[in-house]
Amino acid sequence: MRLSRRHFLHTAGIGTASVWVPGPMKGYTADEMRAMAPDGRVEPGVSKWELDTPALCLDLDNLDENIRRMQAAMTRLGIKSRPHAKTHKSADLARLQIATGSIGICAAKLSEAEALAVPGVDDILMTTINVSPAKIRRAMALRKRWPGFIQAVDAESNARDLSDAAREAGIVADVVVDVAAGTRTGIPAGEPAIALAKLVDQLPSLRFRGLLCYDGGAQHVKGYAARRERALRVMAPAAETCQVLARAGLDTGIFSGGGTGTYDMHHETPGFTDVQVGSYVFMDAQYLAIGNREGEVNTDFLPSLTVVTTVLNAHFEGVATADAGTKALTLNQPDPIVVGETGITYQARSDEFGTIRYDNPSRTYRLGDRLELIVPHCDPVVNLYDQMYGIRNDRVVAVWPVTARGRSQ
Amino acid sequence: MRLSRRHFLHTAGIGTASVWVPGPMKGYTADEMRAMAPDGRVEPGVSKWELDTPALCLDLDNLDENIRRMQAAMTRLGIKSRPHAKTHKSADLARLQIATGSIGICAAKLSEAEALAVPGVDDILMTTINVSPAKIRRAMALRKRWPGFIQAVDAESNARDLSDAAREAGIVADVVVDVAAGTRTGIPAGEPAIALAKLVDQLPSLRFRGLLCYDGGAQHVKGYAARRERALRVMAPAAETCQVLARAGLDTGIFSGGGTGTYDMHHETPGFTDVQVGSYVFMDAQYLAIGNREGEVNTDFLPSLTVVTTVLNAHFEGVATADAGTKALTLNQPDPIVVGETGITYQARSDEFGTIRYDNPSRTYRLGDRLELIVPHCDPVVNLYDQMYGIRNDRVVAVWPVTARGRSQ
Repeated sequence: MRLSRRHFLHTAGIGTASVWVPGPMKGYTADEMRAMAPDGRVEPGVSKWELDTPALCLDLDNLDENIRRMQAAMTRLGIKSRPHAKTHKSADLARLQIATGSIGICAAKLSEAEALAVPGVDDILMTTINVSPAKIRRAMALRKRWPGFIQAVDAESNARDLSDAAREAGIVADVVVDVAAGTRTGIPAGEPAIALAKLVDQLPSLRFRGLLCYDGGAQHVKGYAARRERALRVMAPAAETCQVLARAGLDTGIFSGGGTGTYDMHHETPGFTDVQVGSYVFMDAQYLAIGNREGEVNTDFLPSLTVVTTVLNAHFEGVATADAGTKALTLNQPDPIVVGETGITYQARSDEFGTIRYDNPSRTYRLGDRLELIVPHCDPVVNLYDQMYGIRNDRVVAVWPVTARGRSQ
Repeated sequence: MRLSRRHFLHTAGIGTASVWVPGPMKGYTADEMRAMAPDGRVEPGVSKWELDTPALCLDLDNLDENIRRMQAAMTRLGIKSRPHAKTHKSADLARLQIATGSIGICAAKLSEAEALAVPGVDDILMTTINVSPAKIRRAMALRKRWPGFIQAVDAESNARDLSDAAREAGIVADVVVDVAAGTRTGIPAGEPAIALAKLVDQLPSLRFRGLLCYDGGAQHVKGYAARRERALRVMAPAAETCQVLARAGLDTGIFSGGGTGTYDMHHETPGFTDVQVGSYVFMDAQYLAIGNREGEVNTDFLPSLTVVTTVLNAHFEGVATADAGTKALTLNQPDPIVVGETGITYQARSDEFGTIRYDNPSRTYRLGDRLELIVPHCDPVVNLYDQMYGIRNDRVVAVWPVTARGRSQ
């Protein structure tokens, strides 16, 4: 069955509800909502349409379904999930992922890992190397208090520095070698990676745990077949490296990589253990557009992350202005998708404002009306907000802080 | 004199210093720097190269010079500056602007205005209308405790709601009418704006103070002559509206608009009082590219805002990876400019990483080296950080919180 994007949005539990509420709205501020939810839970639920806008909303029913689908796939495919927390930056979401079967989380930056080392999140794989002496020492201090912390390395000098810092901290640190899937991060597969893995294995204060190989570019290749071909081809040299190391007697208990775009492909990669899925919890316009086995729309997971916005100007023909611009939605493409509308586009290309354009709308919007938008690219949007509102049946039932918001260091 | 961008960067007090520091760096975290600077001032200064990265840095000498140049221009042109705080979101910067001659600040969002209502910042013009009943009430509550708060309106229903809320709060609220310069915000010039201004003037709990007209699109028109032609042409209907209102006896003590791209043009607009300059304090790659009276590079103000980044990967020929991606620099174009380098490009197109490409470099970068980047577009970059480091002579002398960071509501 080939689904159109709009048809999918109408059948995926999003877009079927009324997209606006008539009459005055309360406009609850973030501070008011947090005061109502000292433990993160709001009782009784406030309508999401009554939040001050722009408001970042997370449909918890769709989130639960996404987690269920991912875990079912992992079970079926015989691999594990180690979700990347750079997507959500949320301690609550990390705990939920671990509690529902994921074997740990990943973190992209050290400050992010430090923020997400919370009870219930024992295992954290830091997928980016730490270079400065201060960051290396901090990483080892984190490892000392958080035994499930695993650090990526991709350079010999860095491995030696890490070993020195681990010794100084009085620990033996767990390390994976990041094998390059391009030229962005990692060390080339084959001899360079093998030599580095052996060095890590020999350094006195490091414990070699395996490999990491992340092909970011593969995630958004459009079309399932093309994406699978690229994903498996690019990962093959790392898989060969992994096999050489295994034959040499090194620990290859971790061979981690992939993402939401390739979650159902890397079980075919020999030795592969776990997929660093991130966006599957939220979905976004980018991941909807990559397609899946069935067609051009990726229906494997449901859009759960939206921004509610308010119309600020309706004076002009064919166009209206709303209050979510690039500071609320980023400049990522494709444009945000207006939930429940088929003849409207929304562009968030100015800092403070979004532009609604009418093509063939089911209705036009008046001053004060609200719209709900599926975000272009979930990771950097979440990073703009201090909290996301957990929604069930259009009502706020939780306020989750974006724990590692702004932690780009 | 026509200056090349690179020549300008080398003569503008930026790019002349060494762009990296050999040897180990401390990597001070934001928490450590804040602990050192309980009152915002750091003594003795830490080198900016020793900050944990990505780090948002503000050269205070260039900032001072930008403020001096703007105020000198205002004096010469016979208008005032009312800087837009959406650019810097900083209470410290707002205070500095007021202390050096600006007549007030502007705020784009109510939560931003609330955050920047601090001692030393008496006058705040809220340039965006507030629509929801809650926001209107909050705006009037702010006006009650902050007598210098002025609210924009652009719709009759909104003016009536505002008057009701002002009466409820027991105040008479100061209001300007936002006259459209396009179709984004504001009410059309001429009859609609005049009718709204008269309504505001008559409503019992509002006090009409004048007009606002902002042509965002004019700010980045390349070439001085083309920009001036557009700016004055688009502003003309608002100026005519202003004159009609003045002849009708209404208060037109405020006729505010324009920005950094048109700061030296609107003194030619009849009745114009003050320019809502924002980016002049920082400058960015976008504003460097618009040109000025002298040539293709806008040398009227000096780049003062930079991001310091660390090289994370140097394994591959012709390319390297650093730690500032879109979460540190946004996706805005043009790309960030590497300070002090003529043969290198930097692209921040992935969430966590930036890509350095060597074309004709003066040097190549090694693992752990640092680079300094002029940001693509200052407003949304500042919004990604919790603090900016005030720098003099490459040393941190102040840590300024980004007071209204994330205040997109």
